Amino acid sequence: MQTLSGTDEIKEIENGGITTPLGFFAAGTHAGLRYSKKDLGIIYSDVSANSAAVYTVNHFQAPPLQVTQQSIEVEGKLQAIVVNSACANACTGERGYQDALKMRSLTAEKFNLKDHLVAVASTGVIGEFLPMEKIQSGIEQISVGQTIKHTEDFQTAILTTDTVMKSCCFSAEINGKKVTIGGAAKGSGMIHPNMATMLAFLTTDAAIPQPYLYSALKEVTDVTFNQITVDGDTSTNDMVIVMANGKAGNDLLTPEHPEWKVFKQLLKLCCEGLAKQVAKDGEGATKLIDVIVEGAATNEEARIVAKQVVGSNLVKTAVFGADANWGRIIGAIGQCPVSLNPQMVDIAIGSIQILKNSEPQLFSNEKATEYLKNDVINIFINLNNGVGKGQAWGCDLSYDYVKINANYRT
Amino acid sequence: MQTLSGTDEIKEIENGGITTPLGFFAAGTHAGLRYSKKDLGIIYSDVSANSAAVYTVNHFQAPPLQVTQQSIEVEGKLQAIVVNSACANACTGERGYQDALKMRSLTAEKFNLKDHLVAVASTGVIGEFLPMEKIQSGIEQISVGQTIKHTEDFQTAILTTDTVMKSCCFSAEINGKKVTIGGAAKGSGMIHPNMATMLAFLTTDAAIPQPYLYSALKEVTDVTFNQITVDGDTSTNDMVIVMANGKAGNDLLTPEHPEWKVFKQLLKLCCEGLAKQVAKDGEGATKLIDVIVEGAATNEEARIVAKQVVGSNLVKTAVFGADANWGRIIGAIGQCPVSLNPQMVDIAIGSIQILKNSEPQLFSNEKATEYLKNDVINIFINLNNGVGKGQAWGCDLSYDYVKINANYRT
Repeated sequence: MQTLSGTDEIKEIENGGITTPLGFFAAGTHAGLRYSKKDLGIIYSDVSANSAAVYTVNHFQAPPLQVTQQSIEVEGKLQAIVVNSACANACTGERGYQDALKMRSLTAEKFNLKDHLVAVASTGVIGEFLPMEKIQSGIEQISVGQTIKHTEDFQTAILTTDTVMKSCCFSAEINGKKVTIGGAAKGSGMIHPNMATMLAFLTTDAAIPQPYLYSALKEVTDVTFNQITVDGDTSTNDMVIVMANGKAGNDLLTPEHPEWKVFKQLLKLCCEGLAKQVAKDGEGATKLIDVIVEGAATNEEARIVAKQVVGSNLVKTAVFGADANWGRIIGAIGQCPVSLNPQMVDIAIGSIQILKNSEPQLFSNEKATEYLKNDVINIFINLNNGVGKGQAWGCDLSYDYVKINANYRT
Repeated sequence: MQTLSGTDEIKEIENGGITTPLGFFAAGTHAGLRYSKKDLGIIYSDVSANSAAVYTVNHFQAPPLQVTQQSIEVEGKLQAIVVNSACANACTGERGYQDALKMRSLTAEKFNLKDHLVAVASTGVIGEFLPMEKIQSGIEQISVGQTIKHTEDFQTAILTTDTVMKSCCFSAEINGKKVTIGGAAKGSGMIHPNMATMLAFLTTDAAIPQPYLYSALKEVTDVTFNQITVDGDTSTNDMVIVMANGKAGNDLLTPEHPEWKVFKQLLKLCCEGLAKQVAKDGEGATKLIDVIVEGAATNEEARIVAKQVVGSNLVKTAVFGADANWGRIIGAIGQCPVSLNPQMVDIAIGSIQILKNSEPQLFSNEKATEYLKNDVINIFINLNNGVGKGQAWGCDLSYDYVKINANYRT
């Protein structure tokens, strides 16, 4: 365990994940949607959990998202989530909708639950139908547990072009009770969340009423998952779901609770951790780019600028090539629909000041190139135009991005 | 000459360009900003010409654009345009502004003109100062003329990462007089005009008052230059300038003139021709992508959808790889802030119907792949939600885009 500076109460749990909070189980299996890799996963809570979700704003929201929304609407609770990779079940019309319903009822049946306590998620190719026989036998055979292996099986089963599993776990004392949040996510391409172009699953044993769980998730998503971009494309399928089963035994969390902020910080750290893992594992990525904007008129405008810079193909290719071509950062800032004074902008790459009051500074190109060869690149921007702050994460644009996406389906 | 269908009065002039309209001269020379390639160009009219321009909306508008705006503001006329490549003179503060003024006065001096009859344009790396001695000797030595060679020297001198020259020329009879418009443009990277992330220069011998020239240019730019994208990045430097010297001798063109629409169509064909050449020569591009959207609620919404699809990295890489992965087209359409019915969308790639009322159609993957190997790829989208139409142009995203931009300054 390590203590995070500035958030003394909160501890990161190494090797923790979705089954670390009390009462949560997971599994992943090979149902046969892919040739050999695991492709079906389940999260299960041994009691029903207050649950909330945020969904893509893409007009072509896929059937699994509609079914999940219907589930949560009934009583704001879930007890299981079933996920498949390889097929997004998007743009599949009425048949796709019926397939998502069937996937939900098969899972409900397996755990002897009401249908509306099950959420459904899918990721993969758009426009193909789910192979329902494989889904059915996968659900029938899968067996959930709480070991690291069970958790990693789930984390693996949800991946597509991802190269690594993404997980996170944090805990804090609330009312003297240990409250834990764990998360798992997938996402590598079609990443430009708004909401989130990816799947993320969060589990917590915190006791929290559903409306507050939803508002906390929404608020945290805006500054974490919605601030990452890989390629500017917002997917049809992606969502973040949080389940809170109350097993930690804390007093119910509301905005009036003295430790409400601790809980929100826990949630934020978990979401930010997953979001950064997704950005870093962007298709073809070799580096994580972390853009920090200060001095904007508002926090929202700071986030707009950060996301524009981190999403710029020209910035991304320059970082890939370790070229401190800061004109591209200026170009990206300048096209944002925000208020700024073009005479007042500061830019630093790592600790190297590049621009001060919009005037180029003398700096060593060699040192800048050296810095740009790191795994994590920080770009600091101060608009000197207010107190707004924001941050965004992305990755560089490499030959492999093109390679992966020119041949995705083959 | 060839006659264009549907616009019988308008003829395309092969090998025509900026010196084809009466009274226009051009030149390009090697001033030494680059190692060996031509890097300084001039357009000159032997009488002053009513002139209009549209400019980038990037906050960091470069000094040459400010100087050009000041020139045109005085009496709405220009007689010369001076352009350099290799250095954008952007983010160069007060010194950059003084350099742009100096570049203007040197050109005015050479042709014995008032300063405000000269426009200045620059393109290249951001954040470096203009080498003014080289600019000065280039302007002193350059010699304008009307041959094809003079025109091509200009067209070459303005290029950066472009691989080909871009030019266009159309003529029509107006009041029984032959009116001609010629154009030259550059642009390959940082192309996502709003206005136009590139430089385009249009000359015409039409007689037209300045305010109408401006309104026609603005209207045409919105559906041509502003509808191309290479990489989603809007530059700091780019503009379109049109000079109309009246030498054709037609009655003054106003919206009430019976042949006003012919003139606007002339202007539109010239701008669209240049815009498509820029899109096709996008950095690393192997194909032109032409997206045609119908059935949107408004023309503007149709243009938004067309530009989103043509700008999607995932669509661009799929086209590069000749992969009919249409889910990416759906993904891009779905993230547009427009009104649409997600059950009603049709998509065709060339003549191959892929989606009808949002339902996948059976089609031959082999034929689709074969079609996607062409030089020009048409994507047709019908939202079946109104009568709005729009079009946008872009290019595929290849390994060479990454190669070019990971090493731009070396």
